[in-house]
Amino acid sequence: MQWVEGGVTAPGGFLASGVAAGIKKTKKDLALLFSTVLAAAAGVFTTNRVKAAPLLVTAARLEKGVAQAVVVNSGNANACNGPEGYADALAMGRAAAQALNLPEELVLVSSTGVIGQRLPLEKIEAALPAAAAALDAGGHLAAAEAILTTDTVVKEAAVRFSLGGSTCTIGGMAKGSGMIHPNMATMLAFLTTDVAIKPELLRRALKEAVDASFNMITVDGDTSTNDMVVVLANGRAQNPEINADGPDYAAFVQALTAVAAELAKKVARDGEGATCLIEVRVKGARSDADARLAARAIAASNLVKAAVFGRDANWGRILCAAGYSGAVFDPGKVDIFLGAEQVAADGAGLAFYEERASAELERDPVVITVNFKEGEGAAVAWGCDLTYDYVRINASYRT
Amino acid sequence: MQWVEGGVTAPGGFLASGVAAGIKKTKKDLALLFSTVLAAAAGVFTTNRVKAAPLLVTAARLEKGVAQAVVVNSGNANACNGPEGYADALAMGRAAAQALNLPEELVLVSSTGVIGQRLPLEKIEAALPAAAAALDAGGHLAAAEAILTTDTVVKEAAVRFSLGGSTCTIGGMAKGSGMIHPNMATMLAFLTTDVAIKPELLRRALKEAVDASFNMITVDGDTSTNDMVVVLANGRAQNPEINADGPDYAAFVQALTAVAAELAKKVARDGEGATCLIEVRVKGARSDADARLAARAIAASNLVKAAVFGRDANWGRILCAAGYSGAVFDPGKVDIFLGAEQVAADGAGLAFYEERASAELERDPVVITVNFKEGEGAAVAWGCDLTYDYVRINASYRT
Repeated sequence: MQWVEGGVTAPGGFLASGVAAGIKKTKKDLALLFSTVLAAAAGVFTTNRVKAAPLLVTAARLEKGVAQAVVVNSGNANACNGPEGYADALAMGRAAAQALNLPEELVLVSSTGVIGQRLPLEKIEAALPAAAAALDAGGHLAAAEAILTTDTVVKEAAVRFSLGGSTCTIGGMAKGSGMIHPNMATMLAFLTTDVAIKPELLRRALKEAVDASFNMITVDGDTSTNDMVVVLANGRAQNPEINADGPDYAAFVQALTAVAAELAKKVARDGEGATCLIEVRVKGARSDADARLAARAIAASNLVKAAVFGRDANWGRILCAAGYSGAVFDPGKVDIFLGAEQVAADGAGLAFYEERASAELERDPVVITVNFKEGEGAAVAWGCDLTYDYVRINASYRT
Repeated sequence: MQWVEGGVTAPGGFLASGVAAGIKKTKKDLALLFSTVLAAAAGVFTTNRVKAAPLLVTAARLEKGVAQAVVVNSGNANACNGPEGYADALAMGRAAAQALNLPEELVLVSSTGVIGQRLPLEKIEAALPAAAAALDAGGHLAAAEAILTTDTVVKEAAVRFSLGGSTCTIGGMAKGSGMIHPNMATMLAFLTTDVAIKPELLRRALKEAVDASFNMITVDGDTSTNDMVVVLANGRAQNPEINADGPDYAAFVQALTAVAAELAKKVARDGEGATCLIEVRVKGARSDADARLAARAIAASNLVKAAVFGRDANWGRILCAAGYSGAVFDPGKVDIFLGAEQVAADGAGLAFYEERASAELERDPVVITVNFKEGEGAAVAWGCDLTYDYVRINASYRT
């Protein structure tokens, strides 16, 4: 497996574009992603009971397991707008379908931005013909820019790997810097691949990849109304179609997970106001499920996050967060490391070197390792530190 | 029921003191609470799997349902110190018992402060005779000061009420300004009363009172290793002893809940860096349990808290937090109010007056009301806004 450039247009048969429709004041805010042939498609969506209109439209269309395009806007979430919001999401998809000359059932719809304000549909409809005309096999960066909101960097990743003698590619782009929390599709991410795979297996593979990537990142514990991860697989690599479990399926899941994890880490690292990525490794748990609970609770703890921002080796907060995570373990057996420096053994503090621990907290990522010494369960979660800028950004987002 | 002065020494037969033992640099850090006669006693404790040593000691002693004194230090949590920490907690209780000339089984032990550092036992042992000598029927304020850490204000409350012809009093003091989260005993609180009540009923009453007060406040979502609420009831009011359910029991629970809720609100209002109290009222839920879930999720949401700090009427975040709370409701039916101003109806935004909504956000408390229009379930939760100062305080607490 080899990392390559090209984001969502790295795999053959995918075109992308990003334009400024005027929804946001100063940046590109409308992206199109297009497969030149019909693609297998799957998605995972927020677990929030309040689901934005575009998610309802997209989830319904994905029941057939095929799609050919995705239209995404930033600057407006089209959430909490009642039946009118649903009609707006349908209209946005219809306008994209017309511009692309596709049946509207093959167009997936996605939005991100402020909640509770009607979508500026006319601006989107007016901009879609230009967006369609701009579709390009090198258009990944324009699309990746257009889906951003408070993000400070573009998030792309792509890998190349071999499957049954065919060279295959998986690409992706993501958006997210706040409201990023586990146990959901987590933020917007769009994955593309030229692999030939049956829709049911694509769906399963996406779920596996998301559970080990987007569902293991956390910025502020708030789960959004709009988060989704979508994958399109257009079969252009002409590998023997994956239609059952086996080595090809496993290799595909591994590559898909790699791209998803890379995007997830970029999202966590770009948490609003963050100065560093935090990687929490929990091992020795009674089960992987327990390890996941503990890793995510530690990565999500405001007190741990603020301590990392202050470069304060306050390991007691790490043990405390594990304690309320729901994971089952004996507090008297836990070892804790900051980077390479062990700071607690058997649940009690060591006389560690403050300077060395502080040096480990100056790294990016800051790596926290917790060993329960109970079993073989392991998990990795990612988060970021909590800073003054997080508060500044979120105190005045809407106005 | 009448609010009175006097904190934990408002009820007859209780003495208190607070002295500076030198655990903290510049303030009182050691409190004693003493009943002149044996008292019925009960406690509730953190749900965190990692429980500090003093909680283990105190919980074991409360199994008998009686106690006569409480010793509390601030500045050191005596948590995560292994078997030595447990021995230290026992030694602290023993030293207090000697100073008070009590069997050590009648002394409850409590600590708050930094995690993972050994208790400075010699300082505590050296200061206890002076603390015992300072015990006074007017000592409530000194004790209430001595239990504080990052708190900015002393937290006391007391009520007087009538029970079977006797005038009864309940007093209390609390400590807490960070790591305050529902579903646990929440922080340190010590309640005293001269009511005569059987230990089993006292235990039940305390649980009811805590569920409607301390378990409904949240500052940062982290549940601490040290939190406890303890009540001593010494019977000095000479009311007919409460030994069964009935009007007297109900009146006692009501008064106990009032004191607990007043202390809980003072804790929430004093959240680290907070500029205002947030009161979240959820009604029309399918059950009280659903209303509790939603109210606490809204009060705990970093995004809601940051929006309140920015006085930004971002009601979408309120609905979003209700959405991931686990409460069952139809997002298309929800009404939301900021103070008296309705900002959303049937799940969609109203054309509300920005200025009026902002004015509601300038109040203290800021009152958020959510009506699911599904049933009769209701709950109230309290929190505070998320500010720059929260980050500052918690980035450098330990160093």
